[in-house]
Order: sequence, then structure tokens, then C-alpha cells
Amino acid sequence: MGDELTLGQKLDTNGQWLAQQLVDRGIVPVEHVTVPDDLDATVATLRRLASVVDVIISTGGLGPTADDLVREALARASDDVLVEDVESVRQIEGYFRGRGRSMSPLNRVQALRPSRGTSLRNGHGTAPGLFAKIRACDVFCMPGPPREMMPMFAASVVPMLRPVAGRAVLTRALHCFGIGESDLATRLGPLMERGRNPLVGTTASGGVVSIRIRYEGESDAAVANAATEEAERAARVAGAPFLFGAGEDSLPSVVLDALKADGKTLAVVESCTGGLVGEMLTEIAGSSAAFVGGWITYSNELKKSLVGVPAELLESVGAVSAEVASAMAIGGVHRSGAGYAIAITGIAGPDGGSAAKPVGTVWIALAERSVGGANGEPSISDVRQFRMGNDRRSVREWSARAALMMLWMRLRGVKAPMLREFVAGS
Amino acid sequence: MGDELTLGQKLDTNGQWLAQQLVDRGIVPVEHVTVPDDLDATVATLRRLASVVDVIISTGGLGPTADDLVREALARASDDVLVEDVESVRQIEGYFRGRGRSMSPLNRVQALRPSRGTSLRNGHGTAPGLFAKIRACDVFCMPGPPREMMPMFAASVVPMLRPVAGRAVLTRALHCFGIGESDLATRLGPLMERGRNPLVGTTASGGVVSIRIRYEGESDAAVANAATEEAERAARVAGAPFLFGAGEDSLPSVVLDALKADGKTLAVVESCTGGLVGEMLTEIAGSSAAFVGGWITYSNELKKSLVGVPAELLESVGAVSAEVASAMAIGGVHRSGAGYAIAITGIAGPDGGSAAKPVGTVWIALAERSVGGANGEPSISDVRQFRMGNDRRSVREWSARAALMMLWMRLRGVKAPMLREFVAGS
Repeated sequence: MGDELTLGQKLDTNGQWLAQQLVDRGIVPVEHVTVPDDLDATVATLRRLASVVDVIISTGGLGPTADDLVREALARASDDVLVEDVESVRQIEGYFRGRGRSMSPLNRVQALRPSRGTSLRNGHGTAPGLFAKIRACDVFCMPGPPREMMPMFAASVVPMLRPVAGRAVLTRALHCFGIGESDLATRLGPLMERGRNPLVGTTASGGVVSIRIRYEGESDAAVANAATEEAERAARVAGAPFLFGAGEDSLPSVVLDALKADGKTLAVVESCTGGLVGEMLTEIAGSSAAFVGGWITYSNELKKSLVGVPAELLESVGAVSAEVASAMAIGGVHRSGAGYAIAITGIAGPDGGSAAKPVGTVWIALAERSVGGANGEPSISDVRQFRMGNDRRSVREWSARAALMMLWMRLRGVKAPMLREFVAGS
Repeated sequence: MGDELTLGQKLDTNGQWLAQQLVDRGIVPVEHVTVPDDLDATVATLRRLASVVDVIISTGGLGPTADDLVREALARASDDVLVEDVESVRQIEGYFRGRGRSMSPLNRVQALRPSRGTSLRNGHGTAPGLFAKIRACDVFCMPGPPREMMPMFAASVVPMLRPVAGRAVLTRALHCFGIGESDLATRLGPLMERGRNPLVGTTASGGVVSIRIRYEGESDAAVANAATEEAERAARVAGAPFLFGAGEDSLPSVVLDALKADGKTLAVVESCTGGLVGEMLTEIAGSSAAFVGGWITYSNELKKSLVGVPAELLESVGAVSAEVASAMAIGGVHRSGAGYAIAITGIAGPDGGSAAKPVGTVWIALAERSVGGANGEPSISDVRQFRMGNDRRSVREWSARAALMMLWMRLRGVKAPMLREFVAGS
């Protein structure tokens, strides 16, 4: 819902998240629609969809301002009127009081709901959600901000969803890094044929290629499970040794898990990624158990003064080289006291490339304490060159993930010729 | 178009890009709809939309496989039949020949078009686009991959678009940080009334509250410009002193611009943000002219050893305190040689909070070289405490942006009581 979406001012990510959640619960979405902040259009869309589907889930348009029209639209589409929800007023007032502020009169409109509908509690913001029926169709309206919408979906919508009885939908996602999407598709071979059940497909995002398995049928749970697990086993064989995780796993999460399992710690020394690896790791709650921190050595000055890269190396072979990446990683272990350090240096572009080192040239080094105790001298256990395309954002994302994958392979004892040339679509 | 979108396996970004392109050309999108790989659903959607709009633009579903149904759907919706387009066969054969391959029989189906329609040349892939009319409605179908779709839109669709003659659409976006959305709405007051032209609204994302202005009307360009500029002037007054930029500006971009204008450099010392500020700055090409790098002092050990925070401070007042934030920032300027350093220390959660310092408590300090030359001793020019809600991601994003806003205000000489309690939706 909203002009900012129809006009392209904002990218809708709620639709994708909700679709995944619904599919996981056996409900297959048949249409996503985005409408502007227009009362008539919203009412017409709700009525049209209600005549063809069993459930409508909307996000956005529940704010306090004049362009937030979903309350009114839901009331009209369900031939109802708006009334003030006493409990919602209390919750909104409480929300502000808890933050030492008083409720603005503007926010009071957020407590309105259709008289035959109900309010859905918002634990993370001021806008309650709404539930109402348009004839036989269940309609859930939630606020747009994902951090309010996601917990409300789990707490208030999921318990009220009614998946079709006897219908099984099962999904699995397996995640690989270091192999291209078309190579993975070749390995999956006949598993990917259309018409098979489960259906197996691949998607690629930020260098991670995911295998998606979806079983959909009328059969009983045991049959569905067996078929899905057989497909998963075959897909895991096709994805190995590049398959690092499944479901909600991410490269930072599996690296942190592997470090914790080994009782080891990690530091980062980032140049072209500028803090991205640290950011990806610390996004995960509890990362401090394995991640100690590190350096953003964006300038050559800081590569020298902070992690001890010799000035003559920077002059002779240049900052984007095996030697400098290695010196950064060694300095990282040395000066942080961590068990491992990953160092990244490369040319993210659009400027700074040359014939010998075009934009996308990246060196990644992994250093670790030598065996023989926590005070062992650091040594390099892996150093690789990559070509990461020529788009600044891709170069940085692929580099951060490649560094994490190198560490994960080292921690898990996996040896494989990881993809070194990343191109768009891979 | 496509199961991968309705099932949430892939994020749709084409819709946003196309919407922006259309708005810039005076065509206002009124609906985005995503349908699965289902012939009947696609035909029904094309027919429904054709009865209410002047132009439909679709992407995806033009591949060579059995689930690519848009050719057939377009023919049916326009009461037409498919014929082979001779020129398209030649182009697809040429595409493969240019890559040393021969056309697979599967790809021949991509040369089909409705008999009364036309094919649109694809310079970057095998799938030609299609144009046909469903009664009075112009329908353009393009392939899904952005690198094929975008050039086709520019080359084949734009010349055939027919914006309503004499109709002007103008948009502006102004970005604020440090003020809540409802407070900003109060300041904008009557400007935000519905029915006004230009229409003024607000959106909030990651702590940034944007004022969006859209003029839409029959009048001539001069009238449209004057009305839009008047609204922008009034909105700028309402947003000041929290208004840091417009259009494509972001906090990192305006901070880098201000640093470059002053010939100054910046280092970061990040604890709870874990590299996010560095990442946001280095995402911008050319950031190395002002950003030198810094530290991710995630552990207390590294706060001491890398930037010289005194151990007794960590023991007496704790890591999340004005004193430690200040020591981090001072150490940052001292050890990096930069003109400014911003330091962030806080409790991102979900664990680590206490009654005195709940999750979301964040201290941010700004240090700079004292006046008196590049070798002046660093001093603290700003240090503030914030309450950043209780969601880990929000705490980190708001903290990073608040730090950049503090620096921007300092660089621009702006003094204002920035919001200190950030809540969801603000």
C-alpha cells in the first residue's frame, strides 16, 4: 500500500518476506498488488481480491497522517464503520509513556478499527494492525515497517491462518557460495525438470546461489516429507562442497557457529569492503563470543600505521596484491590477539582500475595462529585472487562473502576450487 | 510475472525502476501486480488492467521454457493468435552465433508474437519484447533480467509512450534526520492536506524522514514548476534544521561532501555498529578523498589496545558511557591523523541491557583536532546519549545515521536539539 511504492520511491521487501512465510505454512500466494494512497483504488482492490481468494494480507497505510487510508478502506470494503478501540488507545498511550512522551492527538486515529473487526497488537510501534472479514475472506492489515510487521505477523496473523486441510506444502532452501548458478543447475540436472514434485529451482543473490525445493500436493505428511527429503539429499550432493548452510543460515552465521564450536576468535582487516564484513558479522546477536573487531584500513597510511604493512610493499607491488593482503592479515592476528584474521584489499571502482589490475580485482588473505598454542606466531593459511565484476556494490558484497567462505572452508576442513570470476547473475 | 516472485524466491526490483522511469516522464503508475506462471491468471490480469489504464508494462515470462507464458497470454488477451516473427528468428540465431553456439530448438518459441502485434529487439539476450494493443490499451512485455529489460525500455518502449499532452508531473524529495515523522508532519501542517497540488507526504526509513512532494496537473511547465518550488520552499522551512539533503542525497553522501568542501578527513571508531558507518561511507565512490578508515573495537580488549581507552574507565563507568565514547573518539583522531573521528558505543541487544542502561542505550562522541593547525591535540566537540528502541537492526542503523548527522551538523554549523529517543516509525 502506498504512493511511495507505486511511484518507485521505495522498494517493497515486505511482499517477498510474507510470500516466503505463507509458502512455508502451506498457503500459496496467487497475486501481489500494490496500490497508491487512494481510497477508491484501495477499496476496489480489497473487494476484487476478496471475491477470488481466501485471505488478503496488506502492509502499510496505517500511519497517523492523512495519506494513511487503510483503516477507512477496510471499513468501506467490509460495509462497516470505524469505531475507536479502547484497548488500542491504551496501548498507544502506553507506548509513548514508556518513552517519556505523551501521545500526539494525531496518533489517536490509529486506534480506529471497523466495528465488526478487531485490532492486532503492535509490540514495536504505534500502529495496531487490523483484522476484518469481507464476506468469507479474511483480511489482515499490518503496518509497513518490517520490524513492526514481522513480529505482528508471527504473533497475531499466523495463529489465525487456515491452511487448506490435507494439502501439504513443504519447502527447503540450501545455500551455496563459490559456484555459478548455471554450473549448479548443470549439476542438479534432471532434479530441476518442470512438472516434478518437489519442484527444484535456483536463485542467486549477492553471490549466494540457493537451491529451492518446493513440494506441493494433496498427499499425506509422510509422503510429502519423504519426497522432499529425497530431493534435499540429491540437492546436497549436487551442491557440495560449496553448500554452506540451509534455511535461515547465512555465511556470517555459519562462520560464527564454526568459530564458537572451535573456541576460536576472529578479527577483520578491511580495505575495499570498508567495514562490511564486520557489519555482517555483528548484525548477528551474540557475535561478540567469536568476533573481537578489527580495522578499516581504507587509506594506505592506515595500512602501514595500524596493521604494520611495510611501506616498501605498498610501493613495489601495490595495495592490491597477495603480499599486502597477507601482511594485513598477519598484522591483524598479531595486533588483535585473535585466532584468525581475514584481510581484503581490492579495487571496488568505478575508478582506480588499470590494465593489470582492472576494477573488480580483489585479494583476500586468511591468517591464523600457528599450531602450538595461543602465543604461536601468525601464518597465512590461504590467499586468493578474485575478479568480482565491475559494479562497486557487487565487488564489495562478493568480496565480503568470499572472505567468509574461505574462513568457513578452513574451519570445516573443506578444500575446493572456489569460483574466482564472479559475473552478474552468478 | 512469475512464480519466483509470487512465492517470494526473488525480490522484484524491476517494478520500482520502471515506476521511477514512468513518473519522470509524466506517467503515474496506479497499480503494480505480480502474478504466478499461470496462463488464465495472466490473461485475466491483462484484460482487467486494460479496461482501466492506458498502458501496461510487464516484465518476465518471455523465456524459452514451458513456464514462460506471456506470449500466449498476450495473444489470448488481445483476441489474437501467435505467429513466428521472421526478423526475431534471425536475431536470436545471430545472438547464439555471436557466442559460437547454435540456437536450441527451445529458443525458437521466443520468436513468436501476436499476429497484430510487433516484436521489440533485445540487444542483450535472446527474448524479444512484445507490443500489442488490448482494445485501446498499449501493452509492452519485456524480459525479466534488468540488464535486458532496461536497455529495451529505453530503446523501444520510451519512444512509444504517449504521456497525456499538457500534463505535468514533478516530484521532489527532501530528507531529514533527528526529528520524528509525526513532529515533522505537525510542522508541515496544512501543506500535507489531501487534495492539495502539489501533494506533500512523509515517509520514514532507517531513521531518515523524507518529505515527498508531487505535482500533478494539466497546467503548463512554468505553472507546475512555480507551484512545486513554492511547496519545496515551505517544506524546507518546516524541515530545517534537520533537513540534510534532497533527491539522491544520503547522510553518508552529504557528510563526505561537507568534509571534502572543508578539506578535512574522517576516521571511525565503532563498537555496537561493528563497521556499519565505515560500510555506509565506503559504499560511495570517491569516499577515499575524505574517509581514511578506522577501528571496529567490538571487544573491550580492543577498545584498550587499539584506541587507548583506559582500563579503569571501562571498569568504573563501563563501555557504554560518555567517558568511553569520548576516549574512543580522541584515540581515533590521535592514532589516525584524521581531522575528525566519530565513536559509537552502545547496547544493540537483545542481551546486555540493564535497568540503568537498557538495550538501545547508545553514546556517540565527535572528536576533532583543536583549532591551531593539523597538529593540534584532539578535543571533544559533541557527545550525546540516545535511546534507540530495542530492535538490534534499528539500534545499529539509527546509531550510524545519528553519528553522521552529528558530524554533518558540526561541519555545517547547525545547532539543534536532535531527537534522542528513537522509536519505531520515527
